[in-house]
Amino acid sequence: MHLSRGFKQLERVDDALSSFLGLLKKKELDSEVVHIEESINRVLAEDVISDADVPPFDRAAMDGYAVRAEDTYGASPSAPVVFRLIGSVHPGKKPDLKIGKLEAVWITTGSYLPDGADAVVMAEDAKRLGDEVEIYTSVPPWKNVDRAGEDIRKGDVILRKGTFLGPYEIAALCSINLSRVKVYRRVKVGIIATGDELIEVGDIITAGKVVNSSAPMIKLLMRDLPVEVKYYGIVRDETSHLLPILEKSIAENDLVLTIAGTSVGDKDLLFKAIEQAGGRIVVHGVTQMPGRPTLLAISPDGKPIIGLPGYPVATAISFMNFALPVIERIAGIEGERFVPMVRAKVASRIPSKPGVRHYARVKLKRADGEIIASPVRVSGAGIISSLKDGDGLLVIPEEVEGVEKGSYADVIVIKRYLRW
Amino acid sequence: MHLSRGFKQLERVDDALSSFLGLLKKKELDSEVVHIEESINRVLAEDVISDADVPPFDRAAMDGYAVRAEDTYGASPSAPVVFRLIGSVHPGKKPDLKIGKLEAVWITTGSYLPDGADAVVMAEDAKRLGDEVEIYTSVPPWKNVDRAGEDIRKGDVILRKGTFLGPYEIAALCSINLSRVKVYRRVKVGIIATGDELIEVGDIITAGKVVNSSAPMIKLLMRDLPVEVKYYGIVRDETSHLLPILEKSIAENDLVLTIAGTSVGDKDLLFKAIEQAGGRIVVHGVTQMPGRPTLLAISPDGKPIIGLPGYPVATAISFMNFALPVIERIAGIEGERFVPMVRAKVASRIPSKPGVRHYARVKLKRADGEIIASPVRVSGAGIISSLKDGDGLLVIPEEVEGVEKGSYADVIVIKRYLRW
Repeated sequence: MHLSRGFKQLERVDDALSSFLGLLKKKELDSEVVHIEESINRVLAEDVISDADVPPFDRAAMDGYAVRAEDTYGASPSAPVVFRLIGSVHPGKKPDLKIGKLEAVWITTGSYLPDGADAVVMAEDAKRLGDEVEIYTSVPPWKNVDRAGEDIRKGDVILRKGTFLGPYEIAALCSINLSRVKVYRRVKVGIIATGDELIEVGDIITAGKVVNSSAPMIKLLMRDLPVEVKYYGIVRDETSHLLPILEKSIAENDLVLTIAGTSVGDKDLLFKAIEQAGGRIVVHGVTQMPGRPTLLAISPDGKPIIGLPGYPVATAISFMNFALPVIERIAGIEGERFVPMVRAKVASRIPSKPGVRHYARVKLKRADGEIIASPVRVSGAGIISSLKDGDGLLVIPEEVEGVEKGSYADVIVIKRYLRW
Repeated sequence: MHLSRGFKQLERVDDALSSFLGLLKKKELDSEVVHIEESINRVLAEDVISDADVPPFDRAAMDGYAVRAEDTYGASPSAPVVFRLIGSVHPGKKPDLKIGKLEAVWITTGSYLPDGADAVVMAEDAKRLGDEVEIYTSVPPWKNVDRAGEDIRKGDVILRKGTFLGPYEIAALCSINLSRVKVYRRVKVGIIATGDELIEVGDIITAGKVVNSSAPMIKLLMRDLPVEVKYYGIVRDETSHLLPILEKSIAENDLVLTIAGTSVGDKDLLFKAIEQAGGRIVVHGVTQMPGRPTLLAISPDGKPIIGLPGYPVATAISFMNFALPVIERIAGIEGERFVPMVRAKVASRIPSKPGVRHYARVKLKRADGEIIASPVRVSGAGIISSLKDGDGLLVIPEEVEGVEKGSYADVIVIKRYLRW
């Protein structure tokens, strides 16, 4: 009886994700215009074409003397060419002087190359003598000059639609003096926590209660994503309570994440609520450990609902494997997320079931020029300590049955700072 | 004349950093108490000792029947033991029933284990028959039970002073119901941009001017650090203008970053201003490309001043190599920053000067199960495109003279999403 709606068939993680992504509507989000410095971690909603050259003018790349290159031909330390020094140029404005034959001006890095000049002789290769300067080297045209447009050319597509904007992309947009940029609106993500045993952090704890740590964790894991999170709080383990909040959150968001209520108990909380809301269960149970009781569903109006398991380690891994790619897809991000990994030597055998992808939490240490991964705790989806103490997730693929001591495995690094 | 204060001796990057860090005052920052969900990317100012067990009580790890383990001994599918079903337990409160000999209760995952019980028999290993249940397996004590304190034990130091707080650390702190946490105050960082040629993004650009892209970039590169940034705007290339702002920024901050004005021109802008402010130049010129004209100095009251070169690629690399470690030191972060890297095959020869550490901007591609790194542009510290288009920085160490086509090198990945 209790298992009537069990995990009849666990789906492979990759298959579950790709079939779920395939069901999402291919609808571009609306866009909005934001100030360039507010565009961090947002996604470009259009190709950006430069309407300016960068640099905007030919400029000195070195401190030295601006000259006509041809006048230096044949110059050498033993046969210097003497130029007449007609002035100096500093950054910030177009110089109003013009260089003629055998004339030079002192110019500092970044300054506008004066008319007539087509090269800069480095200060080291010259010697000033009153209002003359001896040049000791021959330079070809455009030597020590940053040419106008050599960085970015007017008319270039400098960033494409779908680009995730980080500090370097934003710096490039600043360089063409783009102060406002068109990005997709944020993805609206609703979060619902379920569980009669839950209280929020800071509430008074009574016997039988535990603190909801998964919802704050998930919110923080989305912090650098282009999302707008709405948290619906803790819902009691009754379909009658969950259903209206589920329906409201579907109406108000692009994606709904629920936490807990996905395992095969006698309540089938989320399962029933989704069915009653007219939604369609796509996947219930995936071949990952922790995180098996993951539920993927589609609302009647085609929005994704992801039922994350409630134990915090399982929540985190299901979030990473399913919620992140769905958010990226809706957000319109082009490209593949770079996952920081290291190749590590396994300190002690870690068992796993074939056909199931295991994520073992490991501590990383350096020894003898290698990185050593020691399991923090091999099982226990409820053990938040394993994420707190672990530096990474050692991935044991479905095809493999355990990893042996001394073998090598890929570890997804989950910490910014390692005490290794 | 123009070179009178040149880079007499370039210092090796690592030596420059370690001698500079050695000069910083070993003074702990003041602390402040913040709400746990606001503590992301902050640094713990004290060891956190748990005043509670997690889980706070023995709880069912599975849906099934809570029993006395000893009563199941000898049970098997062919010789089931019959238990009397005396009730059911659900999450959220301490059950008020007590299990005696050959008694069982239906219990769902996460529920408080009733008095008397010391194990849970999985639902699959039992069959309910009215008010009785047949148990088909023998379980040892504490089977399918999460023991109180098995995750975190009351009295444990769960996180140590100096821990950088990410989502997982915060989730662990939530689990012990810690709603407020003591962290170090943010590091105060002053930023001063210099250059007569600079305008801020969005300002009207006239001939000879370029847009300040380095300051916004640096601000964004600090976004996930425990800092409070104060930007002092663009200062003209005159020591008389820079000096008062430099002194003010030293007084108001823990660290001052200046952008540009560090190269050996006829102005020596920052050099002179620091001397006039009574500061001490520690390093002027380091063996890195781009980013050679980096200046490291100490104010009269012992505060670090880092003169970042002005060209954006050089700014970024000097920021990474010098400003980041200094901020981490002042912030009190324990542990080593994890730098996301890949080992890549070099697509075409990249030259470098021995004795200088080069950072070549590369595109990454996947081919034949390998990662291929192709240089975007080998030189040109002014070329912001190389950071925009590049996926990573290929590091050519000081001991090496160029990397050959087909050889392998480490690449620091600088993008979150790769179109590879």
